Amino acid sequence: MKENRLNKILEEMTRENLHQMIITSPAAVFYLTGKWIESGERLLALYINTKGDRKLVINELFPIHENLGVDLVWYNDTQDPILALCNIIDKSCSIGIDKNWQAHFLIRLMEKNAATGFVNGSPIIDRARTIKDAEEIELMRKASAINDRVMGKIVNRFSKDKSEKVISSILGELYEEEKTQGFSFTPIVAYGANGADPHHETDASMVKLGDSVIIDTGCRNEFYCSDMTRTFFCGEPSEEARKVYEIVLEANLAGIRMVKPGTRFCDIDKAARDVIEGYAYGKYFTHRTGHSIGIEVHDFGDVSSVNKEEVKPGMIFSIEPGIYIHNNVGVRIEDLVLVTEKGCEVLNSYPKNLIVL
Amino acid sequence: MKENRLNKILEEMTRENLHQMIITSPAAVFYLTGKWIESGERLLALYINTKGDRKLVINELFPIHENLGVDLVWYNDTQDPILALCNIIDKSCSIGIDKNWQAHFLIRLMEKNAATGFVNGSPIIDRARTIKDAEEIELMRKASAINDRVMGKIVNRFSKDKSEKVISSILGELYEEEKTQGFSFTPIVAYGANGADPHHETDASMVKLGDSVIIDTGCRNEFYCSDMTRTFFCGEPSEEARKVYEIVLEANLAGIRMVKPGTRFCDIDKAARDVIEGYAYGKYFTHRTGHSIGIEVHDFGDVSSVNKEEVKPGMIFSIEPGIYIHNNVGVRIEDLVLVTEKGCEVLNSYPKNLIVL
Repeated sequence: MKENRLNKILEEMTRENLHQMIITSPAAVFYLTGKWIESGERLLALYINTKGDRKLVINELFPIHENLGVDLVWYNDTQDPILALCNIIDKSCSIGIDKNWQAHFLIRLMEKNAATGFVNGSPIIDRARTIKDAEEIELMRKASAINDRVMGKIVNRFSKDKSEKVISSILGELYEEEKTQGFSFTPIVAYGANGADPHHETDASMVKLGDSVIIDTGCRNEFYCSDMTRTFFCGEPSEEARKVYEIVLEANLAGIRMVKPGTRFCDIDKAARDVIEGYAYGKYFTHRTGHSIGIEVHDFGDVSSVNKEEVKPGMIFSIEPGIYIHNNVGVRIEDLVLVTEKGCEVLNSYPKNLIVL
Repeated sequence: MKENRLNKILEEMTRENLHQMIITSPAAVFYLTGKWIESGERLLALYINTKGDRKLVINELFPIHENLGVDLVWYNDTQDPILALCNIIDKSCSIGIDKNWQAHFLIRLMEKNAATGFVNGSPIIDRARTIKDAEEIELMRKASAINDRVMGKIVNRFSKDKSEKVISSILGELYEEEKTQGFSFTPIVAYGANGADPHHETDASMVKLGDSVIIDTGCRNEFYCSDMTRTFFCGEPSEEARKVYEIVLEANLAGIRMVKPGTRFCDIDKAARDVIEGYAYGKYFTHRTGHSIGIEVHDFGDVSSVNKEEVKPGMIFSIEPGIYIHNNVGVRIEDLVLVTEKGCEVLNSYPKNLIVL
């Protein structure tokens, strides 16, 4: 078990008067145990309580060879893991349930009156996960350093005879060369007007002279995600496209400049949005400014106008303003930032000046 | 809505005295509406009841352009879809819940006392889905015909300088050429002893002379899945490997011969298993004989010793016996079969005689 992380969770549980919890999402189980287990439709549950018990109910099909520091409670396909859970859970108090647990398991646990109440326990873990510890920060830096290198390589591999899909598949090969676990999400490669269509899926489109080339990509490396967007141009951009690029870059930098402990997420969103609105392109910036990232590419917490929380040291999120003019041009520039004691560290170092391919 | 399918579900609900249900799994929603919608973490719920109401609660981010024959209940990210559901659900009786619904939604629905009871409603749909209708049978034939063609092509593309991974990636290209939606599952390409390791993941292994070459692959085409395994040999197999191949083939044929209405799944499993046990290789046949397949590659219902249900016309499942001798050789031969009125139709026609590549 990652003891420091577990202790943070248990402290928060005590504060919220929730004394036991089961954790079932692979990402949350990984966060606490360091072990990634995908058990598909089979029940997998990490049970923790404020007395210090930690048990993992797990099917024999998923052997564990290392010492995870939890009691392993094995079952096989002829046994009922709900009964095993009932034996573990303290019936006399309520229990936190993983937000994504399959409903049919929860229904059976309730039918067995396994606890006095059932609440969504995930917010406690999701909030803890927004603050990365030293080990996580190192892994996030590593994943983004790889992403920087891959962005450099894909630019070298770009040529006019390669469709969006071909570029996307080369990205996959580059992440493989870097020995990562692959994409952290399906990458977006969008040429010209495609980049302005929020529903565009990377396809066989070929680039035209003057097109913007959006590359929004990231890898998963040692279970941590990177995510970066750069927009290039194939040949000289039009005057408006150039202007749009410079506005988006200014918004990206304005957002990043705001990142320091005590600033609210909504203030960061506003800083980036104000730049774009100042040039009267506000209606073309159609999404939030960013999202938290870590073990999952979309961790809990948005950089948006409705998120009034203050950012704290250890948080990592994206700053990714964009301008999307229908049937014309799309530009997005995205970096990941780590909140430090006094400001922030930008995890991406790939250049952001306008590059003509 | 697919009215015949819906009526089957509603009749069964009436029989089981369950008068309302929400369906949230993309595959189940597709089965009833013909529309595939992945809403990720956002609530999507198809509500049906035995009075004939059908409503779809759906986020505005997933626009519906066709007429699905349901009332659409839209919400956006500033609104609470649980309240919308509460307005729809009849509070005075119990409700069926989709087995895979995220627990946090169910917890909120219960907190609102949205119904008098909450039960797992999915078995009704899962059982209905095991019997394919004419439209589904046509699509299943089509997906398997594509799989047959791709198996033929991959054999032509095979050469000794191609690793398991390379063959697997060519399979992906072939499914793309066939304009399918891609793999129905991560294919298994396993050379020699790798094929005998149940945990082997397709990797950079190169083939050796005499190796068996297991190719277990399938595509998803118009939302229906195919799944077939053939085992080839790279150069002449050893005498034992050849014997193992012939035994597995005999087991495959014995299983298929048993398939007709009224036979139980466990009898089919036994027919295949008896052949292998008869040659004293029983302990090397380490899995069930098959699984149902349709919209999902593993639909409800196994061909295994514990499934005492009788097979019925319209059911489609795999017959895939295998022998796995550690550090030596693995052989599996898998076809999909459709139960007909008098027997069965084998959906795969790719040859099963021993082929040396």
